[in-house]
Amino acid sequence: MSEDDVVAAIASLAGGSPRILVGIGDDAAVWQPSRSHRSVITSDALIEGVHFSRAWMSLEDIGWRAMASNASDIAAMGARGVLATVALGVPADLGPADVLELYRGIVACARTAGCPVAGGDLVRAPALTLAITVVGEVAPVRLKLRSGARPGDILAITGPLGASRAGLAHLRGDVRLAGELQAHAVAAHCRPQPRMREGRFLGASRNVHAMMDCSDGLSTDLARLTASSRVGALVDAVPVDPAAAEAARQRGEDPLDFAMAGGEDFELLVAVSSRAFPHLAARLQARCGRSLHALGRVQADAGVRVVKGGRAAPLSQSGWDHFSTPPAQGT
Amino acid sequence: MSEDDVVAAIASLAGGSPRILVGIGDDAAVWQPSRSHRSVITSDALIEGVHFSRAWMSLEDIGWRAMASNASDIAAMGARGVLATVALGVPADLGPADVLELYRGIVACARTAGCPVAGGDLVRAPALTLAITVVGEVAPVRLKLRSGARPGDILAITGPLGASRAGLAHLRGDVRLAGELQAHAVAAHCRPQPRMREGRFLGASRNVHAMMDCSDGLSTDLARLTASSRVGALVDAVPVDPAAAEAARQRGEDPLDFAMAGGEDFELLVAVSSRAFPHLAARLQARCGRSLHALGRVQADAGVRVVKGGRAAPLSQSGWDHFSTPPAQGT
Repeated sequence: MSEDDVVAAIASLAGGSPRILVGIGDDAAVWQPSRSHRSVITSDALIEGVHFSRAWMSLEDIGWRAMASNASDIAAMGARGVLATVALGVPADLGPADVLELYRGIVACARTAGCPVAGGDLVRAPALTLAITVVGEVAPVRLKLRSGARPGDILAITGPLGASRAGLAHLRGDVRLAGELQAHAVAAHCRPQPRMREGRFLGASRNVHAMMDCSDGLSTDLARLTASSRVGALVDAVPVDPAAAEAARQRGEDPLDFAMAGGEDFELLVAVSSRAFPHLAARLQARCGRSLHALGRVQADAGVRVVKGGRAAPLSQSGWDHFSTPPAQGT
Repeated sequence: MSEDDVVAAIASLAGGSPRILVGIGDDAAVWQPSRSHRSVITSDALIEGVHFSRAWMSLEDIGWRAMASNASDIAAMGARGVLATVALGVPADLGPADVLELYRGIVACARTAGCPVAGGDLVRAPALTLAITVVGEVAPVRLKLRSGARPGDILAITGPLGASRAGLAHLRGDVRLAGELQAHAVAAHCRPQPRMREGRFLGASRNVHAMMDCSDGLSTDLARLTASSRVGALVDAVPVDPAAAEAARQRGEDPLDFAMAGGEDFELLVAVSSRAFPHLAARLQARCGRSLHALGRVQADAGVRVVKGGRAAPLSQSGWDHFSTPPAQGT
């Protein structure tokens, strides 16, 4: 059973409820606190030794990254942040000062993302554990799900991929990046920027039919978006981050594969009406200073194919699957 | 530094926000999704080896109890449940079937409490970890905080205390309960019932000035309620559960101390206008089939004193403090 299979079984156990508009399976769940409002909520857990290691990240960076990954899910719904709660499991070798350092990172990212910490829990645990929940809100017309992509849509992403994975590879000593590439890749891994403004902007456009954040690797996340939308895709122009290209070169890997398997870049993946794409990309550039990179097309036929060396081959899902993969340091 | 000190430092780091009406420090945080609504949110983490052990609880019970402790915080605000998210950390020796068993308990309690599971996360972890977040909603006039107790109020609780602790002592083999006492105590520990209806009922009364759930032991929680309200208390009639009395007898402990130190009974602790108390208690009995036990009085002078053997002595905080206590099996 893959992670997606287990999640599907859990979703069926959990059942539905008239109050829950979107349940298990999207970036965040959606409910309706009043007629004109939609609230969204997302929870992620990050565990030491599974998702990060204190060997190559400061406690402040660990806190930042945990908050960023949750805030990104809120951005991916087209929503703005409202507040966050933090349940923290602290191992015996960390004292109150360490907890506060961790919180400094959490709070700094929470401020940037507009979702102040409002509560939580503090417990002992065998490994440092950050379980963060973020609540957001969005007007009904701005809400974007994974399930709205239509054949003919352009698939696009808010930035190049693979920098976070390259930063991790550098921090672990698997590759040796230098100068600007190093600084950029390490920052991408330790201080990822959730695309809050971009999410709000893209959520406001009727021409954006589907949106999700790219957190488990494009290969995994694209398969999820197309499956949710009951469509397929042809991918021919994935923007590869220069640090990812260099890291892949040093490891003798294909840069495209390296970038598509790299999770936690937290760029937003959208399906956009092809007619509206040029104008939307220009406005995103003007408003948020960020390029919208077309990486392929939505197709009616199921399955994702990737063009490499002039040939389209079926996508191999190389992204991170938490449940079927055994625990590994810092994956 | 005690847990409360660390939480105070975290609260100061987190700062406030105009959107957050109640932040860190109550049972749940409160925000305002629209003018006529208040939403509440709470997050708790339960960690294997710290809060529970698989040696004496089934996975279904563990799931139930984790959800119950969160739902109870929603009840304690006078709110009703809306939805829950579950971030689950699963050790390598548990497979998909085990995860689903755990979820059966979570979902069963979530249904009872009216907060269906809408999302979450599933990750690998060194120890079984359940981080649950529950969102609720409440009309502004029904919202009850810890901070509203007034001198002269009667302090009351929705049920006798100590049964959950007695059940745990029995399951660990520290005491030997039999027959109905055993069944009652084990159920209190493994399948605690969050007081959702009682919370809604008590929230609806203007004569209830403060409310919280009793989850860390009356001695700890009463100190928190009085500190939040800037009052003191004289406690002279704590209702001790019969199973707790028997467990205390077997261990040679004072039954009152045993019951007041026992956390996770999830009864609701309220400060009620003394004039209104008899009528409120009668109505709670009629509506919810549950007694409201007067256990003492709110006093203007700070500090909590407990009458034992005819003498009032200052409260010793014997409840569970997650942060200053070293990890212990099943505490």
